[in-house]
Amino acid sequence: MRGEKIGTLFHNEANVWDCSKEVTTREMAVAAKDCSRHLQNLSSEERKKILLDIAGALDANVDLIISENEADLAAAQDSGYEKSLVARMTLKAGKITSLAESIRAIADMEDPISHTLKKTEVAKDLVFEKMYCPLGVLLIIFESRPDALVQIAALAIRSGNGLLLKGGKEAMRSNTILHKVITSVIPDVVGKKLIGLVKSKDEIADLLKLDDVIDLVIPRGSNRLVSQIKAQTKIPVLGHADGICHVYIDKSADMDMAKRIVLDAKETLLVHKDLNKTEGLDDLLMELAKEGVVIYGGPVAHDTLKVPKVDSFHHEYSSMACTLEFVDDVQSAIDHINRYGSAHTDCIITTDKKSADTFLQQVDSAAVFHNASTRFCDGTRFGLGAEVGISTGRIHARGPVGVDGLLTTRCILRGSGQVVNGDKGVVYTHKDLPLQ
Amino acid sequence: MRGEKIGTLFHNEANVWDCSKEVTTREMAVAAKDCSRHLQNLSSEERKKILLDIAGALDANVDLIISENEADLAAAQDSGYEKSLVARMTLKAGKITSLAESIRAIADMEDPISHTLKKTEVAKDLVFEKMYCPLGVLLIIFESRPDALVQIAALAIRSGNGLLLKGGKEAMRSNTILHKVITSVIPDVVGKKLIGLVKSKDEIADLLKLDDVIDLVIPRGSNRLVSQIKAQTKIPVLGHADGICHVYIDKSADMDMAKRIVLDAKETLLVHKDLNKTEGLDDLLMELAKEGVVIYGGPVAHDTLKVPKVDSFHHEYSSMACTLEFVDDVQSAIDHINRYGSAHTDCIITTDKKSADTFLQQVDSAAVFHNASTRFCDGTRFGLGAEVGISTGRIHARGPVGVDGLLTTRCILRGSGQVVNGDKGVVYTHKDLPLQ
Repeated sequence: MRGEKIGTLFHNEANVWDCSKEVTTREMAVAAKDCSRHLQNLSSEERKKILLDIAGALDANVDLIISENEADLAAAQDSGYEKSLVARMTLKAGKITSLAESIRAIADMEDPISHTLKKTEVAKDLVFEKMYCPLGVLLIIFESRPDALVQIAALAIRSGNGLLLKGGKEAMRSNTILHKVITSVIPDVVGKKLIGLVKSKDEIADLLKLDDVIDLVIPRGSNRLVSQIKAQTKIPVLGHADGICHVYIDKSADMDMAKRIVLDAKETLLVHKDLNKTEGLDDLLMELAKEGVVIYGGPVAHDTLKVPKVDSFHHEYSSMACTLEFVDDVQSAIDHINRYGSAHTDCIITTDKKSADTFLQQVDSAAVFHNASTRFCDGTRFGLGAEVGISTGRIHARGPVGVDGLLTTRCILRGSGQVVNGDKGVVYTHKDLPLQ
Repeated sequence: MRGEKIGTLFHNEANVWDCSKEVTTREMAVAAKDCSRHLQNLSSEERKKILLDIAGALDANVDLIISENEADLAAAQDSGYEKSLVARMTLKAGKITSLAESIRAIADMEDPISHTLKKTEVAKDLVFEKMYCPLGVLLIIFESRPDALVQIAALAIRSGNGLLLKGGKEAMRSNTILHKVITSVIPDVVGKKLIGLVKSKDEIADLLKLDDVIDLVIPRGSNRLVSQIKAQTKIPVLGHADGICHVYIDKSADMDMAKRIVLDAKETLLVHKDLNKTEGLDDLLMELAKEGVVIYGGPVAHDTLKVPKVDSFHHEYSSMACTLEFVDDVQSAIDHINRYGSAHTDCIITTDKKSADTFLQQVDSAAVFHNASTRFCDGTRFGLGAEVGISTGRIHARGPVGVDGLLTTRCILRGSGQVVNGDKGVVYTHKDLPLQ
């Protein structure tokens, strides 16, 4: 494991992106693609070594990273940024150590590149293989958290992709030093331009036009950021712009379980009409009130519970508030969710297996749960390893997305001179072969 | 198997799209999505029965289909359409019978819906499943061949998707009768609006704006059509706009094999420089000339072989012509292909395993072949079952795409009241479970 201090590395900057030079965004993206091809050609062990070197370089440069981060924090405080934002920006020694550890975990992951998904004998001595390969170049736009830069860079390297990063301007010095530490250990055979740091917001608009070079955009931040990016580009965007999720409490729900899950999830509540005015529901609503959650009602709930009326079922709360409405049965709940939801995560609480199955089958969302909190919708919690994001799109990747969201596939055919010749050239056998 | 003649079905048209009524394109797309949800809720056997009924209805209405098709053919001939186009439009009795047979084959396919891809125990009594589900609504824009309508409709039903179809105006009567025959057997519990026939070209522009309802566009036709569609929409497009494919003949190639493959494939030829002026290459070029293939040369080939110079390596020939250029070695061939190719299908002919491996590893195309004709790049030939199209995109589906290109995934979580509670709510086990 290599852990040079960055002091010695500052001298060798020729290959690091220099914001003082004018580099067109297209050149930057094309360079990242070229470098990604070199990265892809390395052995799995060589890619692993880069990741271990990054972890070492982070550990070796903790003081430098902290001092740059403190400069950002001071400036943010002076500018009157919100406390929660400043907290998200903060990199303490412990945080950096655990970041380095998480990169070692990514280094230890099974190499996804060249993993064979399908192998078929097409004809005698003619073998087809479908295998994973990198997408190419990713553009990541993230807000505030500089640790996102490190994690995403590690995932990109593990999956053989080039990367363009744009962080928030309030964390510019933190991002710049992290980028420098990471690229300092990328070997010349790959090229440090594998990871480009985009410094100005104006460049984003240019980058979003490069749908012939950039393969995927991942905005990590507010729903507003995701919506803005989606509106501006033809490049596929992985993310979710809205997160209106539902918990439906069925007639037969265990109300203690419902209370626990609702308090954990705090999503839009759909409640079977027969539960209105029951002790179980009253108790649940009281607990929510105790936690400071304000309830708004749909038309029926507004009438019967005398709570303020919600303006729209499409409304997503940023504060401690949620919408409640009564529905006739599980089918009404499903219809409501398919109509008003974000197709993100929805849950049914019921002891009735038939209702549960109907709900799991018919709710058309990325994630559908039975008797479990919607908060479980997360790649790490699902056991997918590192999470790239949660996608509500239906193309490519859906739901919590792990490293496989950064991959595509290629078809390899190994023959011995076969020709098609109007399909008279070979005798097709189409036999599945074992994947080693 | 049901095989009613359409004569009796014309009476029951209330649910069939009627072009005389004004139906907004959005209503049409939303209706297709609603119906697709009903289709998805059927059992596998019920979906299979619809397909068998369609096959039966095609067989029962051969005469009617032929007479409508003949009207299209006569009009096309009168309008002076090219012979090849008229041939592609023609539906003979044998063709219709074999279409019905191919639908019975699709009916017999394993049901892709609800197929589990991954199953994990997240914690005790908390089980995660990732499973296939339909994309939603597909928009298929096809030229000339009315049989494409039937195949695509069958694939959409097999995969639980709604469908909007737009065919060429020259085949309007053929498409209309085929659409009528197919929708006549879609049961009311699904709704005949599952498959909408778009009649006017103007509606396409409107449909291409509906990126909130339509999930995938598949243009089946010329490269020009694909490019036009891609330029007009934010909906993901499955297809390939260019098809500049390469055959690289390595120094160590078996020249008899090279000749066979080149004559089968007729792609852009890259030839190792040491083969210049050899008997093997001269023989190959002579055979190409005999078959009427005109050779254009890159700068080097133009000089040494005295063939006309190619304007651009990006040029794709629609007629019997191909480009030839000499390259220094396998690495130059790879660089040339990654620079000028369409990332569609590229092939190396060599007896040298190391060169083959380098080429297969480094050419960044959807399909990369060793010692086999590029013509094998086809879903049916690869053994994927029915082919939806060939994608050069890197997102979602790449290369020849089978029914899985019409699917996305959903995450199902079955619990017993678990909450996240800052990840103290459960003990994560993350144990892979067997798929059934």
